[in-house]
This record gives sequence, structure tokens and C-alpha cells, in this order.
Amino acid sequence: MIKKDMAKEKPSIPKGTRDFLPIEISRRNYVFNIIREVYQLYGFKPIETPAMENITTLMGKYGEEGDRLIFKILNSGDFLSGLPDELLDSKKSSKIGLRICEKALRYDLTVPFARYIVQHQHKLSFPFRRYQIQPVWRADRPQKGRYREFFQCDADIIGSDSMLNEVELITIINDVFSKLGIDVVVKINNRKILAGIVEKIGHADKFNQITNIFDKLEKIGIDKVNEELAETGIENKVIDSLQPLFYMDAAYEQKVEYLNKILRSSEPGMEGLEEIFEIFEMLKRINIDCEVDLDISLARGLNYYTGTIIEVKAKNVDIGSICGGGRYDDLASLFGMDGMSGVGISFGADRIYDVIKEKDLFPENIETFTQLLIVNFGPKEQNYCLSISKELRESGISCEIYPDHSKIKKQMQYADKNNIPFVLMIGEEEMRTGNLSLKCMKSGKQTTLKKSAIAGYISGNC
Amino acid sequence: MIKKDMAKEKPSIPKGTRDFLPIEISRRNYVFNIIREVYQLYGFKPIETPAMENITTLMGKYGEEGDRLIFKILNSGDFLSGLPDELLDSKKSSKIGLRICEKALRYDLTVPFARYIVQHQHKLSFPFRRYQIQPVWRADRPQKGRYREFFQCDADIIGSDSMLNEVELITIINDVFSKLGIDVVVKINNRKILAGIVEKIGHADKFNQITNIFDKLEKIGIDKVNEELAETGIENKVIDSLQPLFYMDAAYEQKVEYLNKILRSSEPGMEGLEEIFEIFEMLKRINIDCEVDLDISLARGLNYYTGTIIEVKAKNVDIGSICGGGRYDDLASLFGMDGMSGVGISFGADRIYDVIKEKDLFPENIETFTQLLIVNFGPKEQNYCLSISKELRESGISCEIYPDHSKIKKQMQYADKNNIPFVLMIGEEEMRTGNLSLKCMKSGKQTTLKKSAIAGYISGNC
Repeated sequence: MIKKDMAKEKPSIPKGTRDFLPIEISRRNYVFNIIREVYQLYGFKPIETPAMENITTLMGKYGEEGDRLIFKILNSGDFLSGLPDELLDSKKSSKIGLRICEKALRYDLTVPFARYIVQHQHKLSFPFRRYQIQPVWRADRPQKGRYREFFQCDADIIGSDSMLNEVELITIINDVFSKLGIDVVVKINNRKILAGIVEKIGHADKFNQITNIFDKLEKIGIDKVNEELAETGIENKVIDSLQPLFYMDAAYEQKVEYLNKILRSSEPGMEGLEEIFEIFEMLKRINIDCEVDLDISLARGLNYYTGTIIEVKAKNVDIGSICGGGRYDDLASLFGMDGMSGVGISFGADRIYDVIKEKDLFPENIETFTQLLIVNFGPKEQNYCLSISKELRESGISCEIYPDHSKIKKQMQYADKNNIPFVLMIGEEEMRTGNLSLKCMKSGKQTTLKKSAIAGYISGNC
Repeated sequence: MIKKDMAKEKPSIPKGTRDFLPIEISRRNYVFNIIREVYQLYGFKPIETPAMENITTLMGKYGEEGDRLIFKILNSGDFLSGLPDELLDSKKSSKIGLRICEKALRYDLTVPFARYIVQHQHKLSFPFRRYQIQPVWRADRPQKGRYREFFQCDADIIGSDSMLNEVELITIINDVFSKLGIDVVVKINNRKILAGIVEKIGHADKFNQITNIFDKLEKIGIDKVNEELAETGIENKVIDSLQPLFYMDAAYEQKVEYLNKILRSSEPGMEGLEEIFEIFEMLKRINIDCEVDLDISLARGLNYYTGTIIEVKAKNVDIGSICGGGRYDDLASLFGMDGMSGVGISFGADRIYDVIKEKDLFPENIETFTQLLIVNFGPKEQNYCLSISKELRESGISCEIYPDHSKIKKQMQYADKNNIPFVLMIGEEEMRTGNLSLKCMKSGKQTTLKKSAIAGYISGNC
């Protein structure tokens, strides 16, 4: 009944994607659950958007490189019909691609969210706070810690320009990482400060180019940064004047003082500085555990940010940013809705997973799935076990009856391999007396119990 | 900084896909959580597979119609290079599609699972029981209750041919629907019985054709079924002899007796009947609430099933099957692993959602997200509120500070629209005395409380 012809090659999955084993799902859910729990405590509400968006929703929002990395979905049916012969003959893949694909996989959760709030604005009340935990897809070159399918865990508040939102997002970051036991530093900056600096040095036209170089400071070092700045045509004198910005191990107060001086006559610059000041003033009122730094070299690649930008790094782990975000004033206007300032963060669940694994911080109990295996001695015992398993499950005990009448040794090995802490053995003798034999796999200890006492015993010892 | 050129059209999403509002996510999670909880009680472990599979993994597994409905992902980069000119000139979309797409979106969770267990066989121990709750995509014509992106909730046991597995899956179905409060009937049949019948009437070669007609019995009625059977070339005399199969409102025992007679000399037929008998014998031992019927007209479209087949319908709701499944002996062999019989079920979360909504069975409390809104009177009060919100969240109370210093009326409307049950008002007077004013939005009642008493009060009244 089944076609076997095309199979038999060794099965595999597309590069950059992953299968997850139960233990991996369990660990990943541990991360998701903590993030979700904190989001909910702050009043964020869950939404979801489809994996596929109209290709026009996504194209042009992530820069040229981004456009190339978007996975496009081939139109169903006769996708070539209606395509002009000249175009087909030209063999221009990128042009033809846009004609034969109307849909694409989402590249992040922020642009779909902007599309969502415009589309559903009349069903929402603003300021609207949503969280969204879903996979995204990018045709990036796969490498360690970088996948083509990965999860983002976003929270955004849209429709409010209060810096209180920034403060709450920073406390969320603090709460999540303190629950996960990861020591982090939160770096913040403001794109308006960067705009002010670029304006003051007379190179406002090179904003993206210059801030991208700033952004590489930690990676390539100060000398290389200065070199690259020179290559863009900035005069050496000006580069010299920027140096204090790069050497700022100084305290927050000194940085603000310095910026106050150099940005004095820049309107965006002073506005950005005022916002940063407001955030730090509020943060002082509440004690948070993690370090929050003003970092002028922080620029963040995505060009929809217009104000605050945030990036989080784990201390003593070399894995890059594990959470990031910022404020965007114009994102919803891309879809026709003006005056909607938003600010959001996104936890990189995959990297956080890697940090927790490297630091061995996963709790032990998440590796147990089934609490009890009931050994299967044969058809008669199996019937007896069926009603016992029913009662145990009603008491909340997760249990399995071994489905086949295999040798006991094989069944015990199964319990062992599956990390099942207890095994219940019910043979003829046990069925007759009602004294059931429960073995703890870890200690090897065997206990005799009445049926009604099993659930309590396991709950107390699991 | 952002390109605004291509936007401004009214935003939308691809047809057949959906955005989910918070309340919809909350309701959907209610369904998922019950299914997940029951799966876990039966010892099923979670796995996940990528949204994209290699296209060769999927093609040819779901029949010709299925192949057409698979969403294909365009290769990245210059996908046309290397494509022979003749092929391109031919404009044969289906052929060219397979050359320019190496990946496709998963169509169900069963084939990826078969691929998974073959690929990871050395990391798993058999019998392996997994559950998987993920979306699937089909380029089907969208209509009421049928989407292009929808969730499947699968559980499978692979590596055991014991009928105990079938029984456990049926009790899972019973447990899930009884927790959800949905009254269902579980129909079961066995493909071997169908094979026996088709063999006995001398039309074994027309197995798929005939069983597909059987399958339509409920939809098109007995006369139309007989008509269609005649059209396939089955003699009238034979069709007459089949009639008792279609009129079987009879009890299970009578059906078995009848089948015993007509299938006596058919090996597969008797094997199937024996399996059904075993299942019903076990089911008698445990009391389950829902009705389980042997239904000979049940055939199920997917042609990888080889033994038991299961389908669940909600009583008094016209929505088709809300859960289904069956046993497949050869699925893993498609990927090069023989002797691995498996059996599984899949809950159709979207239809279940619709049934619960139609019957108004969602619990009320899942509509509350934020429990408390703290009104924002101004910058000074805001600072005071920041530390209060911190303490409340530490006590597990989900709360928000209204982020802007808007008019009180606007803030109260926000609480109302967002279904927030309590509002806390802290002005200068309250800050001075520490007597905080808490308003219950439902009753309108206002209470004066000390800071430390708020969490307890809300937990007790929410």
C-alpha cells in the first residue's frame, strides 16, 4: 500500500535545523517557562502570528542582506504560468523568485508584530503589551550557535513612549536571568546619542556606517575601530576627539558628564541623553541584581531602532548577545499607522540554553518523564495492571505498563535507559495477596505496598 | 533610517493562516495543556522536529494529492543556475519545482516522526513513546474549520505490536475529552478486516478505491455508496451481500459474529478481527466514559495504516473527526528500518477548539491575564509604584503600572478593556499614610489596605 521506491537513503534534515530529543525539549521548556512566567507577571499577553507572511510584509525591512536570508515559499500549482518569457529567459533568480513566491517564512517576530497591531488595531487597547515565543527562519550560513530555525522570545509594549517601559524591560531581563542563575551585564545606549555624536563630528550622512564600526569595538579592538573610521573618511583629529568614548571603563556619572559636554548643541543627542538619565534614575529606586552599563559603542545592527537600545551578555561565557532589544518609533508606520512608539526585547533561547548547559545549571528533576514502570508478566497480570495504572494516573502519577510480555531483564533495562525512578512488579502472588512490590531503581531498595499506598509513596520519594 | 516606500497597503496575512489574539492563545493553551498533561501521565515524552524537511522525506508519502499540497521552499541564492535550458523552456512547473526546492514544510507529524526514529535510533530505547505538538502546513483550499497552518497533537508508540498500546491510546482519548467536557464516540476498525472483506468479494486489487467509498458512508448515505461501488465494477449480487455491514446499528457482539462468518477463510481478515477482539476485551476491564464502537465503514484516507484505525467524533456537533489515528507497520521501513510497528493518534486542536467554543465550555478564569493595574499619577508616584510592583510580582501577582501619566479615566478604561480585575490607586495621600486604595473592577468596591496585605487580598479574591 505504500510506495517504497524513493526512500532507503539515510534520513537527514536540512542543514542548520535540528531535531530535539525529549531531554532537550524538557530543558528548552525550562527556559521558555521561566521567560513566559516573568512576562506574565509583568502583564504581557501572548499572541501568535503565522509562520508564513506575505512576502511584501517582510521584504525591505531587514536591509539587503536580510532580504537575501528570507526563506521564500513557492506558489502552489502552476507557478510559472503568467511569467513573461523574457523574464524566464533572463534567468534572474532574485527577480523571478519574487514572482513565483507570494509567501515567506517570518524572519523575526518584530515586523510581524508591527503588521499585527496595525491589522488588529481595533481589537486591541493601547498601550498594548504582548509576548510571543515562536520559531523564526533565516537562510544564514549555519555555524556553532547559529541555526536556520531558532526560537525568539519577544516582549514589546507599543503605544507608549514612557521610559518606564524601558525600566520594566530591564527588570524583566534581571528577573529572568536571576531565576535561571545566569550572571549577566545589561548594556544600554540610545540611537539618538549616536546620532548626536555623528552629527557633532560632521558625518551625519554616515550614521549607519559609523555606528556599525562602533558596534565592532569589543570584537576587533580599538585600533582596528580607529583604522576603519579613518577609512570612511573621518579626519584623524576627529577620531582623536572620539577616543574617550571608547575607553570608558568610567562610572556611569562620568560618561554622562562627558556626553553632556560634547552633545550640548545637538538636539537628538541631548534628547537621547535625557532618556538614558531617566532610565538610570528609575533603576536606582529599585534594587536589581544585574549590572547595567551605559555603553556608547553599542549600536545594534537592525535599523528600525530609533531610541534606547539594549543588549545582554552572560559574564564569563563567550557566546555573544543572549538578549537584545530597543525602541522603534516608526515600525508600525511601515504598515500605515503613525504615532505608535514601541519598545521591546527578545531573549535568544538557543544561546541561553547553551549557556545553562555550559555552566551545568539545569535542575535535575527535569530529566524525569515517567515516574513508574509497571512490569508486564503476561496477559492476566496485564489486565490487573490496567486498572492500577488508571488509578495511579488519576492520582497524578505518570506511569507506563511495559506493552509487551518481554523478559523481565529487558523490561528493567527499559526502565533504566528511560530514567524511570520506580518499577512496580505484579505477578500472580501479588495479585492474590494485594501486596505489591515496588523497586526504587536508584537505591535498588524494594518495598511491599498495598495498591492504595503507591501514589503517596512515589510522590513522597520522587 | 527605514524604507517606507513599499508599505502602506493594508496589511494582511496569507489566506488560510491566522493571527491569534491573547484570548485565543489562552484558550488554545487550555486545550494543549490538557492533551499534554494526559500524554505525560501515560509516559509519553516530548520531541520536536524542524518545520522544514528535505523534500525527498515528504514527497510520495501522502499520495498524489498530498504531494500537490506540500508547501515547497525555494532554494536560497541563484536557484536557477544549473537548471537545464530545455527544462526551463518546458515551463513544467511541477518538475521545475522539485529542482529549485530542496526543502518543504512538514505536512503532518507522522512521517517526520518515522524519519526521526530511524535517524536517532541509537539514542532512543524501544518501545519509544513520544508526543509532539507542532503546527503543520498544507496548501489545501481554505474553508470553515480547514486552515493552511494548523496544529497537530500526536502521540505514538513505536516498536511494539501489543494491542495494549491501542487500549492506552483509547483511554487517552477518553481522558482528554472527559477533562475537556466533550462527549465523544470513538470509532475503531482494522484495515486487515477491510482487506479481508475486499479479498472475500474478489476485488483485492481495488482496496483503496473500495475502502474510500466505505469511508464516505456517513457523508453520502448508503444509496450513494452502493451506487459508487457498482461504478467500480462490483457485481450487484456482491453489493447486496455487503449490506449488513452498512446497517450495523447492532451491538459489538453481533458485528463480530457476522464478521467471523464472512471472514472465516481470510487470513488478514481473521487477524484483524482477533486484534479488535483483544482491544475490546481489555477495554471491558477498565471503565471508560466514552462510547467505543466497531465501525466497519471507517477506512481513513491515509494509506500508511496497516492495522487498527481510530476516529473520534463529538456527539451533537457537526464538525467531522476531532481525533484520529491508527497502526502502521511499514512507516519506518520507508526510511530503512524494518520490523518497527507503530501506533499513534493525533488530536485536531483547531476543531476541538471550535467544539469547546460552540458548546461554551472554556473555563472563565483563562480570560484574565493581568490581575492588577497600578494607576500612574505622575513621576513621583511612579517611583513609589515601581517598588510596590516589584514586591507584588515576587508574591506571584501579575501586575502592570500604567506607563504614562494619562487621565485617570483613560487608565480605568484600560483596566476595563483588558479585563483586569483590580486597580490600585496610589496618590500623594496614600504614599504618606501607606493606606493604599484597591478597587475591584467587577463589584466597584473599594478597599483600603496596607502594602503588605495586597498580594494576599488579590490571591483570595481572584
